[in-house]
Amino acid sequence: MNIKLPKQKTNFSDWYTQVVKNAGLADYGPVKGTMVIKPYGFQLWDNIKDSFDKMIKATGHVNAYFPLFIPKSFLAREAEHVEGFAKECAIVTHTRLKNDKKSGVIVDPDSKLDEEIIVRPTSETVIWSMYKKWVQSYRDLPILINQWANVVRWEMRTRLFLRTSEFLWQEGHTAHATKEEAQKETLDILELYRKLAEDYLAVPVFMGLKTESEKFAGAEKTYCIEAMMGDKRALQAGTSHNLGQNFAKAFDVTFQTKDNKEEFVWASSWGVSTRLVGAVILTHGDDKGLRLPPKIAPIQVVVIPITKNDDDKLNVENYLDSTIKSLKKNGIRIHIDWTNNTPGYKFNDWEMKGVPIRMEVGPRDIESQKVVLVRRDIGEKIMLSKKDILDMVPSLLEQIQSNLFLQAKRFRDVNTHLVSTYKELCSIIETGGFVRCGWDGSPDTELKIKEETKATIRCIPFNEKPQGKYCVLSGKPAKHEVIFAKAY
Amino acid sequence: MNIKLPKQKTNFSDWYTQVVKNAGLADYGPVKGTMVIKPYGFQLWDNIKDSFDKMIKATGHVNAYFPLFIPKSFLAREAEHVEGFAKECAIVTHTRLKNDKKSGVIVDPDSKLDEEIIVRPTSETVIWSMYKKWVQSYRDLPILINQWANVVRWEMRTRLFLRTSEFLWQEGHTAHATKEEAQKETLDILELYRKLAEDYLAVPVFMGLKTESEKFAGAEKTYCIEAMMGDKRALQAGTSHNLGQNFAKAFDVTFQTKDNKEEFVWASSWGVSTRLVGAVILTHGDDKGLRLPPKIAPIQVVVIPITKNDDDKLNVENYLDSTIKSLKKNGIRIHIDWTNNTPGYKFNDWEMKGVPIRMEVGPRDIESQKVVLVRRDIGEKIMLSKKDILDMVPSLLEQIQSNLFLQAKRFRDVNTHLVSTYKELCSIIETGGFVRCGWDGSPDTELKIKEETKATIRCIPFNEKPQGKYCVLSGKPAKHEVIFAKAY
Repeated sequence: MNIKLPKQKTNFSDWYTQVVKNAGLADYGPVKGTMVIKPYGFQLWDNIKDSFDKMIKATGHVNAYFPLFIPKSFLAREAEHVEGFAKECAIVTHTRLKNDKKSGVIVDPDSKLDEEIIVRPTSETVIWSMYKKWVQSYRDLPILINQWANVVRWEMRTRLFLRTSEFLWQEGHTAHATKEEAQKETLDILELYRKLAEDYLAVPVFMGLKTESEKFAGAEKTYCIEAMMGDKRALQAGTSHNLGQNFAKAFDVTFQTKDNKEEFVWASSWGVSTRLVGAVILTHGDDKGLRLPPKIAPIQVVVIPITKNDDDKLNVENYLDSTIKSLKKNGIRIHIDWTNNTPGYKFNDWEMKGVPIRMEVGPRDIESQKVVLVRRDIGEKIMLSKKDILDMVPSLLEQIQSNLFLQAKRFRDVNTHLVSTYKELCSIIETGGFVRCGWDGSPDTELKIKEETKATIRCIPFNEKPQGKYCVLSGKPAKHEVIFAKAY
Repeated sequence: MNIKLPKQKTNFSDWYTQVVKNAGLADYGPVKGTMVIKPYGFQLWDNIKDSFDKMIKATGHVNAYFPLFIPKSFLAREAEHVEGFAKECAIVTHTRLKNDKKSGVIVDPDSKLDEEIIVRPTSETVIWSMYKKWVQSYRDLPILINQWANVVRWEMRTRLFLRTSEFLWQEGHTAHATKEEAQKETLDILELYRKLAEDYLAVPVFMGLKTESEKFAGAEKTYCIEAMMGDKRALQAGTSHNLGQNFAKAFDVTFQTKDNKEEFVWASSWGVSTRLVGAVILTHGDDKGLRLPPKIAPIQVVVIPITKNDDDKLNVENYLDSTIKSLKKNGIRIHIDWTNNTPGYKFNDWEMKGVPIRMEVGPRDIESQKVVLVRRDIGEKIMLSKKDILDMVPSLLEQIQSNLFLQAKRFRDVNTHLVSTYKELCSIIETGGFVRCGWDGSPDTELKIKEETKATIRCIPFNEKPQGKYCVLSGKPAKHEVIFAKAY
């Protein structure tokens, strides 16, 4: 029997947990807040990873790998940085276990480290300590390095994919000869993040700037892509930071300019994480489970044979054999479910897993040289001649990809409200949605709204129009138009 | 000016370090024994990784991701396992830093964990704690999961790629319904490791069984591939373990068999690591630097334009444009060095980096519609008509691949000696090489030889012929024929 999901409307949070579990995406690990990414979830992440990896390679970036371990003193060199991460560090203090007759296996006190080690929460410090060795002259710049890695932030309230003590991500760390170049890089990457979110994950995003209080610890400016989830809350889906010369100064990384001056190096850093898997679930999921955008779906087409006996099975196999080979050859990720479960069970199971197209084939379909295709996104059934499969499947996958994006965009736009009074803001934040409104630019205003409504400024959107607007709280002329929302 | 390498014969160890550094492969990180894998070294590892990833996927394995952190008590559940790793653990004990007026940033004593956490040295324990949740019946088996991950073993004497506190690897962890199936998996994977080493890395290996004293902590049996490096020392290049029911018992993982009995699950685990990059350097390197097997080389062909001015440059560019496009289209990894260094500098630099083919093109070559190709493996120069490039390059890459393997195999075979006396053994171990000889099967004999010569039994090779042989030390009838060598 299939599992019954809670309805999204009844309990969105519980619905999310159940989807993650029942679609076979992830599970909690034994240490609090750690995550096991199961094969289906990992393949989804891997497809997202591959998509982005291609984009950054095409724009001249290269991958490398830096150590997991950071000396405590390194973290402390950039004042804001250490403050930002001090409260959520995993700290290594010893290097040996030993047997104790009373207590069993214990930490050997003699193995205490002289200097404690931090398990990287992010790698700016360790990377800039290396750039110090690698950069002498303008000829060594730019450095456009990325790494795919695990990082650790000791979170108290965790949630699979969205907030876990350890997560997987990519972190780009670039070094430049000029301020302008670092800024261009920061924004170029943000545009790649938008592309990844919208064109691959089918998740529409607002691009914008974080306020001072929300920016990355150690950055001059943090840019972000912000998405609306199915419960109308915001999810920060990726951030790109202009680090100015902060880390170059902290690690004394200077270079000789073309005209023989010595200057500190300019920097950017940027990251997206396994959180994107959470974004996909929360954006597209419905009461039946996941709905996966075809471009990143581990399986794009699942075939359900409708059979009563072994003869039927053999017939289906023969009937589809060359078609499936051709689809695979064309790069379509297709899977036949030959398990002994009933067709009904399989329908539900693969709907839970979000496979974009279901193909049903039984004796009657074979007789009439047809198959039935069912779209996961809208549930539509299509009776199709066998000979049309090769043309129809790729085009249908494209339609599903763009329909998921349009559905999500419509949902977001309907739930994003232009607001001019604080009362309206409160009411929308209460019932759910994004508020676009004027803000006087004061951190106090921002904090007060946060304390009263739990909504934060998600970003100052690039397409803001503050002219003629007033701050929703203070009534002063708006310095910026911003987006307020409750966020994950 | 190019860097002068130490000669291999004069100081092999120093030669290794300089090659790793000057070819831009890796660097030490700030925490003792940690490694930064630089872009060129990382691309090399990535190519090795991709080659193996395809093999395991083709044989039904899937990737997943398990947490970095393991509760101390988990490690302690399997007695041999904890003993094997107790002395080289990174142990997390606290989770917060705080500011102290006297000492600056310190570890917050209030953040001490109830149970200490081990940074994974390997993941059997955390993975089997999950399999406990995932396995109920024979229908849940087999599980054929692999992960690509970082692991930490606190090493005192470290060496880039060969032995570092943190390294990257894959670790497969499979669960089976029968003992036979687990054993078959263990050996199937060993065969894939042989294939990876010999057919991709061009590193010939002996396949065999480890002795009890050399096997993995927690395994029933450890199989390995062992290679000979350029200084005639051995390198363990990969291991595949039959874990029996040890971890299933430690984590109480049972399943219902087809005939309704309850039985413990059978297991294998297996891994290769960034150490393989070290194997490639140490096997193929020469006094000029790296020599990379084409199948895994980040760059297979480097073009050095021989030019005096911008006109020359433009001519070379035009001359090669369509050829390079076609080579790329055929999957050849080709790079043109347009930097301002002299051709001589470039030759040395790309030889250091081990690129299999150098293509030189100058005005005279253009005039005669030719190019010059130079093989990195044997230094041979080939004058070639431009129209033959597309055919010749792939075939030359194949020749280089197989020549590197044959060279290494000849070297290994010449330096592997069938020995019947202990005196001979000592003399060969002293001067360098592998010793194949009889062994009485006694751990005492093994230990004594190790203490006296520093040589260990690398493996009991699959093709052993102990019949009629006698133990090299005790003179008793040989239980096994084994390979002794000093090892990395």
